Amino acid sequence: MKPVVINGFEVSGVASGLKKNGKKDLGLIRSTIPACVAGVFTRNRVQAAPVLLDRERIKAGTCQAIIVNSGNANCCTGPQGMMDAIAMAGCVAGELNIEADQVLVASTGVIGEPLDVSKIEAAVPALVGSSRTDGIDDLAEAMMTTDTVPKVACAEGRIDGQAFRIAGVAKGAGMIRPDMATMLCFVMSDIQAEAVAMQEILHLAADRSFNRITIDGDMSTNDTILFMANGTSEASVKSALHREVFQDALDDVLEGLARLCVKDGEGATKLVEVLVRGAASDRQARAVADTVAHSNLVKTALFGEDANWGRILAAAGRAGVPLEPEKVDIYFDEVQMVKDGTGRGKAVEAKAAEVLKLPEFVITVDLNMGSGRASVLTCDFSLDYVRINADYRS
Amino acid sequence: MKPVVINGFEVSGVASGLKKNGKKDLGLIRSTIPACVAGVFTRNRVQAAPVLLDRERIKAGTCQAIIVNSGNANCCTGPQGMMDAIAMAGCVAGELNIEADQVLVASTGVIGEPLDVSKIEAAVPALVGSSRTDGIDDLAEAMMTTDTVPKVACAEGRIDGQAFRIAGVAKGAGMIRPDMATMLCFVMSDIQAEAVAMQEILHLAADRSFNRITIDGDMSTNDTILFMANGTSEASVKSALHREVFQDALDDVLEGLARLCVKDGEGATKLVEVLVRGAASDRQARAVADTVAHSNLVKTALFGEDANWGRILAAAGRAGVPLEPEKVDIYFDEVQMVKDGTGRGKAVEAKAAEVLKLPEFVITVDLNMGSGRASVLTCDFSLDYVRINADYRS
Repeated sequence: MKPVVINGFEVSGVASGLKKNGKKDLGLIRSTIPACVAGVFTRNRVQAAPVLLDRERIKAGTCQAIIVNSGNANCCTGPQGMMDAIAMAGCVAGELNIEADQVLVASTGVIGEPLDVSKIEAAVPALVGSSRTDGIDDLAEAMMTTDTVPKVACAEGRIDGQAFRIAGVAKGAGMIRPDMATMLCFVMSDIQAEAVAMQEILHLAADRSFNRITIDGDMSTNDTILFMANGTSEASVKSALHREVFQDALDDVLEGLARLCVKDGEGATKLVEVLVRGAASDRQARAVADTVAHSNLVKTALFGEDANWGRILAAAGRAGVPLEPEKVDIYFDEVQMVKDGTGRGKAVEAKAAEVLKLPEFVITVDLNMGSGRASVLTCDFSLDYVRINADYRS
Repeated sequence: MKPVVINGFEVSGVASGLKKNGKKDLGLIRSTIPACVAGVFTRNRVQAAPVLLDRERIKAGTCQAIIVNSGNANCCTGPQGMMDAIAMAGCVAGELNIEADQVLVASTGVIGEPLDVSKIEAAVPALVGSSRTDGIDDLAEAMMTTDTVPKVACAEGRIDGQAFRIAGVAKGAGMIRPDMATMLCFVMSDIQAEAVAMQEILHLAADRSFNRITIDGDMSTNDTILFMANGTSEASVKSALHREVFQDALDDVLEGLARLCVKDGEGATKLVEVLVRGAASDRQARAVADTVAHSNLVKTALFGEDANWGRILAAAGRAGVPLEPEKVDIYFDEVQMVKDGTGRGKAVEAKAAEVLKLPEFVITVDLNMGSGRASVLTCDFSLDYVRINADYRS
């Protein structure tokens, strides 16, 4: 597949030595001209230094480069952490000969250990020197922590006959839950758009993608989505209709990346959509979907390929929303396992067991009370999740 | 150790064949005279038939027997499930020659499979026939599902010079979280007390014990605490002071059982108290303690004996309460790992690593913002938790 290229952007990824295994751990996105920028950040009360720095810097509405490292989250690192984040950015600004505040920063990895910023400073010349239009795969690789595959998605569209393109990269795998910004995700586009509109469009896209996935129910201190638009295309977001066209394309990119993150969830062997319908409201549907999607008992049963619908119903019952158990239907893909709150027997269960062997399927919970509807993506909870997270720092 | 005996109570446990492995699965508590009764039940919207039945029956304020089975939860079993619960009780009532509504019922095990009540009916004569004053260990064994040890606790005290005794049994292990009734727990006492007072005392004791433990964050459909007091002692709860004495003793029993449940949590290798202090209020302290105690990332790190305080701070940060990260201190037992939101280095970490090897220890999170305080008991999240729950029904 031809690497994704967005006009006016160069990207790269190199190994600075932050990762003990010598893999790529430092990435760069640069625009040849200042780009408009929007961002969505974690709602955790504990926020890493780069998050605090970026929140300030994006207020200006423009940015020309993003530097990202993996291997260390630069979080809970005190005042030194903030100095280190500023130093990382400053180093890139110096090399590119641009203003320091035109550089944003992101970090991911272990929390609470000092960042060895000297390694980053030593690697920045090579990072900048190797940046190129088709370097997106290197960047995606440099962002990985427990991810097993790099995550890239792109889309294109036309506004008033003018083409625009969007490319995004993400890293995820652990510490992911709904109602937060996300893990790390960077999006580039050549669209012409104003920062305020971009911010609104990005928020909506995040709500429809990263805010409806869950892996382990934990929320990171570093989650960041940054979206740069450098306007090198003739396509411009001026009307509500334009906006809709661009929103669709951005939604596609973020949904694609969010899906890749769940699929590559730590230890995950299955990608499962929990669809709740028939709720009194969308909000109530969402509460039920979240509870089912987060339930450790549901997720371990998925890993065991056990069509244990009782756990699904029990999780729905503790979601804190009104529910009449004797009305609930549950499906695994097209197989209806539960009708009116009770199981449909061994023959149906055998059919459901076949669905559970699939790598991707949908669990539908129909509350049969109204027209509220919501869907959340989750993954199973495997032995490898525990192995990965029991040994993460060793 | 001499088995616990409470005057006027006989208990037993037998194998009815509900458990495929032939182990004890049917238990009985009977009082020679009608006892006052109080109960606390799951707040899950999906409730098993025995829970619905008991809720009705305890309104009368008295009961003379409890029958409990393991191996099947009789939940999500439709109208037939209710008929089966009534039949179980009726069978005991017939054998004891008492009113049917003087018998309460509890079930635990797989959800959604029809209960084979004929096995229970066939076993009730032996169950009643074998009941004896010192049979509490048989009862505790008959309640076990994924529990690895039977759980019994007792206490005694004096009111106005008159002795009273309390004995309790519980089963737990999975589907346990705070803010619910509990798994199954039955308490017997020879105290003289009125049902209304008993209900209040029981609610308080449950709040201080079972409502502050968590194993996997899931809430069962069957959780039940039943407390019978047959008044065969001369000790009587008449004044506020009497009540305090009895409350203390009941708290001890329920706290002891709750602790045993966490310690025997599915796959658990460690019992950890999460103590949050210095919060703006007790409620906020509790929110932080709950979030830390539930975090899969914290729990897997505990299993890995990894002093990963960053995950603790990150979990605290998403508890939804105000928190100033740069004020937070974290201790493992007496070892202070985090001061003012940052780590204290490798030497301290090595000391903390020693604490993490212990089977029981306390994680203290001091928010340094006020005097609010709360504590929650949790356990680690091990490979065996996943093994147990991936294979539960097979």
